[in-house]
Amino acid sequence: MKVLGIVGSLRQRSYNLMALRAAQRLTPPGMKITIADLSEIPLFNQDDRTHGDDPSAVELLKSQVREADAVLFACPEYNYSIPGVLKNSLDWLSLPPDAPFDGKPVAIMGASAGSLGTSRAQYHLRQVLLFMNTFTVNKPEVFIGSAHAKFDEAGELIDAPTEEFIAGLLLSLQALAKRLG
Amino acid sequence: MKVLGIVGSLRQRSYNLMALRAAQRLTPPGMKITIADLSEIPLFNQDDRTHGDDPSAVELLKSQVREADAVLFACPEYNYSIPGVLKNSLDWLSLPPDAPFDGKPVAIMGASAGSLGTSRAQYHLRQVLLFMNTFTVNKPEVFIGSAHAKFDEAGELIDAPTEEFIAGLLLSLQALAKRLG
Amino acid sequence: MKVLGIVGSLRQRSYNLMALRAAQRLTPPGMKITIADLSEIPLFNQDDRTHGDDPSAVELLKSQVREADAVLFACPEYNYSIPGVLKNSLDWLSLPPDAPFDGKPVAIMGASAGSLGTSRAQYHLRQVLLFMNTFTVNKPEVFIGSAHAKFDEAGELIDAPTEEFIAGLLLSLQALAKRLG
Amino acid sequence: MKVLGIVGSLRQRSYNLMALRAAQRLTPPGMKITIADLSEIPLFNQDDRTHGDDPSAVELLKSQVREADAVLFACPEYNYSIPGVLKNSLDWLSLPPDAPFDGKPVAIMGASAGSLGTSRAQYHLRQVLLFMNTFTVNKPEVFIGSAHAKFDEAGELIDAPTEEFIAGLLLSLQALAKRLG
Repeated sequence: MKVLGIVGSLRQRSYNLMALRAAQRLTPPGMKITIADLSEIPLFNQDDRTHGDDPSAVELLKSQVREADAVLFACPEYNYSIPGVLKNSLDWLSLPPDAPFDGKPVAIMGASAGSLGTSRAQYHLRQVLLFMNTFTVNKPEVFIGSAHAKFDEAGELIDAPTEEFIAGLLLSLQALAKRLG
Repeated sequence: MKVLGIVGSLRQRSYNLMALRAAQRLTPPGMKITIADLSEIPLFNQDDRTHGDDPSAVELLKSQVREADAVLFACPEYNYSIPGVLKNSLDWLSLPPDAPFDGKPVAIMGASAGSLGTSRAQYHLRQVLLFMNTFTVNKPEVFIGSAHAKFDEAGELIDAPTEEFIAGLLLSLQALAKRLG
Repeated sequence: MKVLGIVGSLRQRSYNLMALRAAQRLTPPGMKITIADLSEIPLFNQDDRTHGDDPSAVELLKSQVREADAVLFACPEYNYSIPGVLKNSLDWLSLPPDAPFDGKPVAIMGASAGSLGTSRAQYHLRQVLLFMNTFTVNKPEVFIGSAHAKFDEAGELIDAPTEEFIAGLLLSLQALAKRLG
Repeated sequence: MKVLGIVGSLRQRSYNLMALRAAQRLTPPGMKITIADLSEIPLFNQDDRTHGDDPSAVELLKSQVREADAVLFACPEYNYSIPGVLKNSLDWLSLPPDAPFDGKPVAIMGASAGSLGTSRAQYHLRQVLLFMNTFTVNKPEVFIGSAHAKFDEAGELIDAPTEEFIAGLLLSLQALAKRLG
């Protein structure tokens, strides 16, 4: 089972990137997570879409989503919502004839320094995914609050309960994908 | 009263840009709306913020917001939420020591081809503005649905009820700004 | 396939009750919709739950949900959210050991006099259903705006596009239930 | 300054009632908080409103809101949203010719056993208050998580940081009311 990991921050030391790397080692048997790169996705402008192919970074991301069996978001929260960088990438991927998320199993997690663990951003992302017509895992919701205390200097996840939440999310994603066949 | 208009789309023929231009001619006495340019705002990366000034397009936008008496958003809806381009711009403007929106009177409108008139995106934007600590006008909410029938080929607003809604929103914004002194 | 219809208003001439009755005659082969009665559900008070069975109207609704293959909500919008009457009923049905909605296929529609067709309430309801761990149909979303023009004096649905939307929603619900096995 | 406290739960030992009682002793000089009683508000039915006065418990609540200088909600979270009991009470109070919340300064807080401190319910409540056209305090947002550790057996608030948050909210409410004149 091929899972595409999408992290909604461009920071090198993003807690969400760290969480996604933790997920890579917490996968159940048969699952492999690769991480997409959003750093080259340009600002979306509908005017640019009428002249053939999208920019190559966009085409690459589209093909990665299309070929994945499922997608795992590590979603930061900026200003109580989805980071613009992540939303901008999704804006490129949601329009016909390209709708690579359509019918795709999806899971969401997120990490932040505050106590709410990016929950506000995750609920906004769920509404976006409703439009994109994914099958989004309900539970567990993974809200990694106080992230500074849960990752060490090297960026390793060192909090056992968070490991269990992430592992549980991956199992739920796997089960959902299997159930949908 | 100086109002900064921010349109959340880069399209040349964006309905939301058209709506903002209509607002420019529907202003009450004493109000002037200038329109900001988001096209040069780069993708936000927190790593880039630790080395002094932000990119010049960001610094310009910050100073425009700071000098404005109020801000008027023309907010498109992409995938049931705020366009990434708009959210990305706001992500640059919300962090200390730069918080130019703090305490600012703000109004929101939006136009779309569908029937909901960008309402979903506007509610997400309201949550972002809560974080940014603005005073956001409650009413009227301006949801310009079926926008293709309300602007002509030249991009002019030709729908009288919509003109009244926009004019009413500008009056509400003016009244709110005056009340807050 | 047994579908339980839940209408979130107690009005005799509720547009949402009318929409649910229209759904009853628009069912695909093999589907039957029965309509629940919320009028006898008392105000929820957690203190009342510690002494054995819930009130009989609550126990009846729980058993109806449990025995249904799927649930169809006709959700009004009161004050930009879910009607208190509907939310109050759901508050009785969501706590362990009674969680009759867990894993249940669910569809949502709604009718209102305004143009947004109860969409704001429906998005709040979707968040509630996330907690209750249902499988909620993504599409079509059925937002019946200007409801006064779509039902006649006798309460009959007289708008062909709305009939198609409702029929499409029922097909989606049926397909989702089948897919989940 | 007269503040009406509204608690969205009927439980005797509701954390939110405890939080409201804590607020009563944390008021700044010149502020007095009285607590409304929602237990006698019947289920809302629009059909019942066409025959003159509303039920006496509703009329009482309306007059209490009308006479208050500001309103303070202590909002529980049931199933990721506003409790039905609270929403049902608001449904009685929002329709013309009775709109006692119109233009009223309002503050929100909430307490829950979980870590998110009723934030999901509070955001839904903010959307309801947008419809009701209140002036709602932006900050501080008071999310009292892990409430079982913050109130003692007697229901007294024993957490100093939470006291500071509540006191800060009351100051913000007072400042907003003064600013609006």
